Amino acid sequence: MQIIKNIPRQKWSELCKRPEFETNKLINIVDEIFSNVKLSGDDAIKFYTEKFDSIALNNIVLKEEEFKSQSQKIPVELKAAIKQAKTNIEKFHMAQIRNPIKVETAPGVFCWQEYRPIQKVGLYVPGGSAPLFSTVLMLAIPAKIAGCKEIVLCTPPNKNGNIPAPILYAAQLTGVTKIIKAGGIQAIAAMTYGTKSVPKVFKIFGPGNQYVTQAKLKAFSEGTAIDFPAGPSEVLVLADNTANPEFVAADLLSQAEHGSDSQVVCLSNSLEFLERVIENIEVQLSALPRKEIARNSLNNALFLFSASADETIDFINEYAPEHLIISVEDETPYLKNIQNAGSVFVGNYSPESAGDYLSGTNHTLPTNGNAKSYGSLGLDDYTKKISFQRIEKKGLVEIGNSIQVMANAEGLEAHAKAVAIRLNEHSMID
Amino acid sequence: MQIIKNIPRQKWSELCKRPEFETNKLINIVDEIFSNVKLSGDDAIKFYTEKFDSIALNNIVLKEEEFKSQSQKIPVELKAAIKQAKTNIEKFHMAQIRNPIKVETAPGVFCWQEYRPIQKVGLYVPGGSAPLFSTVLMLAIPAKIAGCKEIVLCTPPNKNGNIPAPILYAAQLTGVTKIIKAGGIQAIAAMTYGTKSVPKVFKIFGPGNQYVTQAKLKAFSEGTAIDFPAGPSEVLVLADNTANPEFVAADLLSQAEHGSDSQVVCLSNSLEFLERVIENIEVQLSALPRKEIARNSLNNALFLFSASADETIDFINEYAPEHLIISVEDETPYLKNIQNAGSVFVGNYSPESAGDYLSGTNHTLPTNGNAKSYGSLGLDDYTKKISFQRIEKKGLVEIGNSIQVMANAEGLEAHAKAVAIRLNEHSMID
Repeated sequence: MQIIKNIPRQKWSELCKRPEFETNKLINIVDEIFSNVKLSGDDAIKFYTEKFDSIALNNIVLKEEEFKSQSQKIPVELKAAIKQAKTNIEKFHMAQIRNPIKVETAPGVFCWQEYRPIQKVGLYVPGGSAPLFSTVLMLAIPAKIAGCKEIVLCTPPNKNGNIPAPILYAAQLTGVTKIIKAGGIQAIAAMTYGTKSVPKVFKIFGPGNQYVTQAKLKAFSEGTAIDFPAGPSEVLVLADNTANPEFVAADLLSQAEHGSDSQVVCLSNSLEFLERVIENIEVQLSALPRKEIARNSLNNALFLFSASADETIDFINEYAPEHLIISVEDETPYLKNIQNAGSVFVGNYSPESAGDYLSGTNHTLPTNGNAKSYGSLGLDDYTKKISFQRIEKKGLVEIGNSIQVMANAEGLEAHAKAVAIRLNEHSMID
Repeated sequence: MQIIKNIPRQKWSELCKRPEFETNKLINIVDEIFSNVKLSGDDAIKFYTEKFDSIALNNIVLKEEEFKSQSQKIPVELKAAIKQAKTNIEKFHMAQIRNPIKVETAPGVFCWQEYRPIQKVGLYVPGGSAPLFSTVLMLAIPAKIAGCKEIVLCTPPNKNGNIPAPILYAAQLTGVTKIIKAGGIQAIAAMTYGTKSVPKVFKIFGPGNQYVTQAKLKAFSEGTAIDFPAGPSEVLVLADNTANPEFVAADLLSQAEHGSDSQVVCLSNSLEFLERVIENIEVQLSALPRKEIARNSLNNALFLFSASADETIDFINEYAPEHLIISVEDETPYLKNIQNAGSVFVGNYSPESAGDYLSGTNHTLPTNGNAKSYGSLGLDDYTKKISFQRIEKKGLVEIGNSIQVMANAEGLEAHAKAVAIRLNEHSMID
């Protein structure tokens, strides 16, 4: 772990690069699995589940009884924690409910916008070494608040063919309507095309590895909306001498333990501070169960020194981190001028793990520089804006001539005539 | 033009199908042009512009002087109409500005959400027989209101190498910052990768033919956000005996004249009304300059009879039309229960062409059934939601235990430690 000083701007884009995957190989696998799922439906899903998850299933839909009974088999303390998380996440996402917008744009021309839920949504929750029940909360709570009717959850079964109880608990608590024991590319394909057991959904949400991400891109090109493409998780910590190097080290490690490809960046205007962070990382690292993973990730970590606040802001906007922690004496200029970031954590007592689990903000965030174009997942992502307009006769008189002028200038005479035929109706103004 | 009665539900999905394109061929062309633009930048754009638009350009960037002088060369009446349109569109999109959301989700846990503009956006305006300056208004006005810094517009030059004056006028009025004389796949590729002349943008907006749509899907898979995939334009008119069959016929024709692949649907609970609409279409059609195009489109038009309001609502939701015109005695049940539509026009004096040009709503809308997952283009699409949180010490005490319980249950011990290290800091509660 080395500190980099005075990086010239022309090298920033290089520094901000995230790891790239060999997508050509991925595309071939994804295309193959998608065509087989499209052709053979449930049978193809079972085939790939046996191949990749090493379990032969008779039925890929979780039975209602199993859902009810298994979901209760988790420690009382964990239940309480999940409930507390649900309360906070609900509060933050309920606050995102929008009232219709109504405007009389011209006399007698009434335009409004309303929000309607996407009727069928598909949530993807990855498998792996531990059950990611927090992702269930983050994906399902806004779906429920938005009023989505069908909330389908796909997650890979373990080697016994079961779904971990904490995932079922979170799913039951949040109103998931159907659970499919399927993961990976085959799960995304199933929700894209629909099979006998899996409903075709209108939008797919959720994180995943490079296979799942490539599958979501395929789903998108096949006409199914997606939240956004996901990549390895990232944190950028901006800290000065007023921050606590122990805390900063802990935050960097909590990112680094996600995976060897996790992206960790620490920026400071104090060389001494950066050195103390690195020392603290070494001390804390040895005590972690996932220290190997964390060390691999830290090998690519960036420790950057910059004395200029303006340069720092520009660099952060260029990097566009998924998570941004700001622990500095005066955060005002940063809060005002940061344009590209997914979720921002302010102050010494706002660790990223608070947002990952329990403060209420969504942990589904744009990675890989995508914070330049995408924001945090939220209620909006589960709704559609529908425009409405009601034009009175006098309103059409008001705007009708201009409509005809514009339509004719665009060579669309029938557009003009749809107005003229109304304006010419005997005496227009009653 | 025939009336269809009593369609069984199992045939709806067939009826709702839109024309499909042979994408495999498209994908190959798109891939080739994208790699050449990535490799050769401006030279590749010029090559394809000469090949497809039959004009050899020395410079693909419109010069500032040309922008200023050419943009004024349009009739006074058209200038006035465009200005009136701008006023209304601005009003409706200004009303979409959102205030930050702030919530104290738990004592001492402050979460908020703010909206920041996407810094660089690319607008695509197709060429063709007439200059689509209305599309410039619809794409650029929300970009300007959102505060996007760079607003790049790509549109194909005509055979003299010029951009039509009405497009330049609309672009100047709305604050477009750069105009590129390039269209088709090469324009989308240029905005995806960036070239010497064309800035790499973070999100691409705008309609286009099947080549442009496929190019936008490619841009998306290359990491550039897009508004949504576009297909041929559509209208569904729902009308009963209280509607005016002349008006309805004019509305259907105004959709049909867009292109041979335009989708036209008329639904009524009155057979007689449907018959009168068809008669009126025949009468009006012969007088249209674009009658050949309109007739081709009308060959695939659907005239559907249904006596049941519930069935009608279900069918509309299944079809998910881009434009929905409702001219019935009591529209209340429809307005309440329509879930999937892009833009809804209510009453006898709200023709689609009002929304296409001047009422204030956006005419960039989801086609091809995409209204199930996407809404009308609006201000949101030019901004990102950023989450923020500031947790006080007492807030972390409040939620810290649950964070640790959840992090440990997910096997992410460093996540738990980032909280523990803060909670264990000498006396936590000051």
